[in-house]
Amino acid sequence: MRLAVLFILATIVTTCNADCHILQEGQIYILRPQSGATGHQLEGLDCLSWRLAVETNNLQNWDTVPMSCEEYVGHYMLGKQYRHDYESVADATIKYAKSLKLAGDDKDIWIFDVDETVLTNIPYYARSDVLFGALPYNKTSFNEWIAEGKLPAVPGALRLYKTLLRLGFKIFFLTGVEEEYRKARVANLKAVGYHTWEKLILREDADKGLTALAYKSKRRTELVNAGYRILGNSGDQWSLCEVAVLERAIK
Amino acid sequence: MRLAVLFILATIVTTCNADCHILQEGQIYILRPQSGATGHQLEGLDCLSWRLAVETNNLQNWDTVPMSCEEYVGHYMLGKQYRHDYESVADATIKYAKSLKLAGDDKDIWIFDVDETVLTNIPYYARSDVLFGALPYNKTSFNEWIAEGKLPAVPGALRLYKTLLRLGFKIFFLTGVEEEYRKARVANLKAVGYHTWEKLILREDADKGLTALAYKSKRRTELVNAGYRILGNSGDQWSLCEVAVLERAIK
Repeated sequence: MRLAVLFILATIVTTCNADCHILQEGQIYILRPQSGATGHQLEGLDCLSWRLAVETNNLQNWDTVPMSCEEYVGHYMLGKQYRHDYESVADATIKYAKSLKLAGDDKDIWIFDVDETVLTNIPYYARSDVLFGALPYNKTSFNEWIAEGKLPAVPGALRLYKTLLRLGFKIFFLTGVEEEYRKARVANLKAVGYHTWEKLILREDADKGLTALAYKSKRRTELVNAGYRILGNSGDQWSLCEVAVLERAIK
Repeated sequence: MRLAVLFILATIVTTCNADCHILQEGQIYILRPQSGATGHQLEGLDCLSWRLAVETNNLQNWDTVPMSCEEYVGHYMLGKQYRHDYESVADATIKYAKSLKLAGDDKDIWIFDVDETVLTNIPYYARSDVLFGALPYNKTSFNEWIAEGKLPAVPGALRLYKTLLRLGFKIFFLTGVEEEYRKARVANLKAVGYHTWEKLILREDADKGLTALAYKSKRRTELVNAGYRILGNSGDQWSLCEVAVLERAIK
């Protein structure tokens, strides 16, 4: 459930890769709603406020995108702004990664979430039976889509991934998707340019029922206990921030 | 320093009150930069990405607003969107506050930051020698402005404040401004509608040199040690999130 409701508005936002079939080059996307000065409340302005409140984690525990904002969210995700936003975050992340000094003992690691971080579900969310999250999350149809393994890479993420590998980080992928989809995930990651990693962690039977925060925190703790130093985390969920700060506090 | 550089893009964003002299009714503010589909990079799109990266705390340790984004930030802060964004956060906060059950022993408290949370410095930041933070922070001129005590209230914050009082919360104001400005701060708060509070905490000599995070965390810890239960924090800085999560972890 969390996966679906949190995908759209991301700590590290995602985008659609260059040959994504739903991004028509040359088409104008109105990225933002109209504004006005007559004092009446414009629907679009509300969608912008709603999105900002979610992005900054001020609005929590929401289930679906308000139906009146489906068009706004769709335009944002299919337009250039989403890609630009991700590139800005990738730039800041690379600057941070380059500032670190690695020990050279293969224990310096970087963890990536998968969905809406290194791969994007935009083609799924753009479907008429999904409406960018304005319709309730359907686990069956989402898993069918995951099993197809056709998620495009996020260009900014692929650039970040390649830079991190060059800098000497060991890469871990940590996904909330279940273990039974390992084969599809591996094929999907490799097909779009993620050729190497230390470990791909999927949700096991014992993790069922855990929230994303609890599940990912548990797995990160295991890595730290195994002697790894987590120098970076990239993800699309606010749980990431809480986990990172909590783990820092507990150390 | 932190106060200035963090004011513009806020966890809880702020706005300009109804009779703020710099908001000309009837004037159209272009809230967002132009978009296009020809593939070339538009300056405005970068400002939007820069702002999102700051709002979500992906971009940290920045000193000034990029000069090329001064106009964008100014339009945003002077326009209706800023006010709408704050109202959305106030709505979510009130919903949360109403969900709490108070013990009725006067120990349930709510802490507000002051600048860019309950009061706004927009009139100062709009000045030609400040340029919405695109020029370097000038502590002397900022303090002169604070001493005048002419900051407008943020409408959404005043509504939230009144609601919290009605619900029975004890209000604490926690500001990074120095103790010597107490008289000006008290007069300013009362003049714009904040008539009552439990305590107004200003930075003392012993706090000089502390970061906003260290200073505010120290003061919050003192409140907890004195038996208060901090049920809510409203502020404009990311330090707030870190402090809250850290304190929860340490408990």
